[in-house]
Amino acid sequence: MNAEIISVGSELLLGQIVNTNATFLSKELAELGIDVYYQTTVGDNEQRLYETLKQAHSRADLLIITGGLGPTKDDLTKETVALFVGEELTYHEESLRSIEGYFQRRKREMTPNNRKQALIVRGSTALSNHFGMAPGMVVSYENKAIVLLPGPPKEMKPMFKNELVPHLTKLLGEQVSSITSRVLRFFNIGESQLETELMDILEAQSNPTIAPLASDGEVTLRLTVKHPSEAERLRLLDETEEQITKRVGAYLYGYGETTLFEQLFLQLRQKGCTIATAESFTGGKFSAALTSFSGSSEIFRGGTVSYATDVKEKVLGVSKRVIDEYGVISHHCANEMATCAKETYQADIAISFTGVAGPNPQEGKEPGTVYISIAGFATSPLSFELLLGGGREAVRERAMKYGCFYLLNELKRWNKSE
Amino acid sequence: MNAEIISVGSELLLGQIVNTNATFLSKELAELGIDVYYQTTVGDNEQRLYETLKQAHSRADLLIITGGLGPTKDDLTKETVALFVGEELTYHEESLRSIEGYFQRRKREMTPNNRKQALIVRGSTALSNHFGMAPGMVVSYENKAIVLLPGPPKEMKPMFKNELVPHLTKLLGEQVSSITSRVLRFFNIGESQLETELMDILEAQSNPTIAPLASDGEVTLRLTVKHPSEAERLRLLDETEEQITKRVGAYLYGYGETTLFEQLFLQLRQKGCTIATAESFTGGKFSAALTSFSGSSEIFRGGTVSYATDVKEKVLGVSKRVIDEYGVISHHCANEMATCAKETYQADIAISFTGVAGPNPQEGKEPGTVYISIAGFATSPLSFELLLGGGREAVRERAMKYGCFYLLNELKRWNKSE
Repeated sequence: MNAEIISVGSELLLGQIVNTNATFLSKELAELGIDVYYQTTVGDNEQRLYETLKQAHSRADLLIITGGLGPTKDDLTKETVALFVGEELTYHEESLRSIEGYFQRRKREMTPNNRKQALIVRGSTALSNHFGMAPGMVVSYENKAIVLLPGPPKEMKPMFKNELVPHLTKLLGEQVSSITSRVLRFFNIGESQLETELMDILEAQSNPTIAPLASDGEVTLRLTVKHPSEAERLRLLDETEEQITKRVGAYLYGYGETTLFEQLFLQLRQKGCTIATAESFTGGKFSAALTSFSGSSEIFRGGTVSYATDVKEKVLGVSKRVIDEYGVISHHCANEMATCAKETYQADIAISFTGVAGPNPQEGKEPGTVYISIAGFATSPLSFELLLGGGREAVRERAMKYGCFYLLNELKRWNKSE
Repeated sequence: MNAEIISVGSELLLGQIVNTNATFLSKELAELGIDVYYQTTVGDNEQRLYETLKQAHSRADLLIITGGLGPTKDDLTKETVALFVGEELTYHEESLRSIEGYFQRRKREMTPNNRKQALIVRGSTALSNHFGMAPGMVVSYENKAIVLLPGPPKEMKPMFKNELVPHLTKLLGEQVSSITSRVLRFFNIGESQLETELMDILEAQSNPTIAPLASDGEVTLRLTVKHPSEAERLRLLDETEEQITKRVGAYLYGYGETTLFEQLFLQLRQKGCTIATAESFTGGKFSAALTSFSGSSEIFRGGTVSYATDVKEKVLGVSKRVIDEYGVISHHCANEMATCAKETYQADIAISFTGVAGPNPQEGKEPGTVYISIAGFATSPLSFELLLGGGREAVRERAMKYGCFYLLNELKRWNKSE
């Protein structure tokens, strides 16, 4: 079975809102094992919507249309679908009563255009809207299903999950329960390098299929397996994962919807390890990311954003000798920053960042030059040097992710003493 | 002229990423006066991409395709476009040299599939990629233009603005030059309140049109005027803006693509005012946002992320009496944090944040309770209390924006003494 998603709304074509509905529906359908080959966005225009419907119906088994069910004269999705399938619109009594009740409870006058929201295509199955007024509907036409959902995500999402999915599951039967996906997340390896390392595996594989995806300096591999037996699905996934990690396991940091920072947060908490920071060009980004998790006060002590050079010396305590001799963009300065932060904030470990965000060079070092140091794991701090590409924000973002990745690797080997 | 946007990538059809490219392009094209009637998303599949191309080319004057220019075998956009227009692919020497240079500078091995990124459709105009490897291109075919742009937004956006727009402006001639837009940005007022205050103006207006849009706790009004004379366009915009600001000018903080933080950065620099921070539950977010601008070292001294309570006392210097008597979630604590930060970092002014990010209450205060204090403008610090809604990250994000907005308002009245 394959589906096609049609988003209706001129605000989408004007770029006034981001189409998160298409993303949500695609993801949910993928998890149900339904392939999506096309997403189309079309404005509040009857003729173009009709053409889009006709084409989608000719090539997909299931059409999901969002938007254009509201009360205004711009909203013409159900009118167009009714025209396409050659049916009339009729009032859905339950929805009409529910809309009238809404206005009565709020003691507001119900304008006539609100009645329009209770219209559905004759013969269709209405889908209740518990977060808004317009019902959705499933229209059967030539052995295919055309589903209409409201545009606002807070109405569309619960209607999809609670009203439509049970309906689809009946239509799909076994197919849904015979698919499992697993996402592996990698850092510090590019998409092309990952693909080169795994070329023969990628080419030979058909079940599970392996889909690489690069974004924000990370690469993921989505493994999707089809088999009636759950045990066999897991076995196949484990087998393929093992083949992959044998070669590139050093870059694997997590599974599914996680992030580097979530993994770091979980590792720190699990090991009872407290942390402090000293950030220069990252300006507090690392601390901000780590404190985004509820419970971060258990592991995060605090940090200094030592931005100005004299602040590194006078507030944080980096020695004047190191700054004069090696400059602030150096291994030495990074090491002292980490050591001072660990001391000042009385933490088990501390991480520091110093570097050139750009666009201009500093101390003769080019933009993208980064030093990261970690104190607390060994008698001396461990420091790392990077040369990162991209603009100012990209350099800052990637530097903080590298710091996170280095910390994660060290933490795996570390156990709290005392 | 009308355009059609085609987004290529199976990750979009799997719902793994949100299609912000289509939103960006639609918005930019609308500003150029180019109508967009359809956005289509298609996977990394040659046949379906070919069909999509053929259809779009039959109904639009300008095709903009994003994605599928990368090094992997999934990437087949330019191969498919070449097939469609009946041309070969050929190496773009400049791009090839730039890719080779990238690997040399980073001392990394260049895998053969990276050469593929330098291929362009023969006879097309290459668009330079300053933030990635694959060049874009403009292919002319049957008096229409097919534009190929890379998928990653950080490469696509600058290429669109800096490389493609000058090209399009030539193609479009007068059309573009008879439209002017102006965006007014507001903070601390909701969309419905803004709309209520301006109802009669919004309803009466046709040239300029006024389009409100709410996002991320801010509201913008986009004024778009059409007139052959530039002077008349400006006069009409000024006139309407004056009507608007007479009523809601207190909430207006900037124009166009700016942000609260950019305005703050510019104001601080213009007034030669240096700043320090003391952040608790915002965890460094404010400092990170302010240091995202090149040149921020002129105005940002540094800051303390005083996350743990004892750090507020022992590192930052908040008095034990204040913490014992009023707690850390209080005006008093916020005021001392700001005063200590100003002193420690030797800055003209300092801002502090303390509050409950959630999800759990703290010191009996509910999540969303926020105290912000600003030291340096008057003899005593100015403090503000907020009760913000939303989840943990929303509270942190909105708190830092409110801090920025308060600072901006104070700065407008301030002049450096001595």
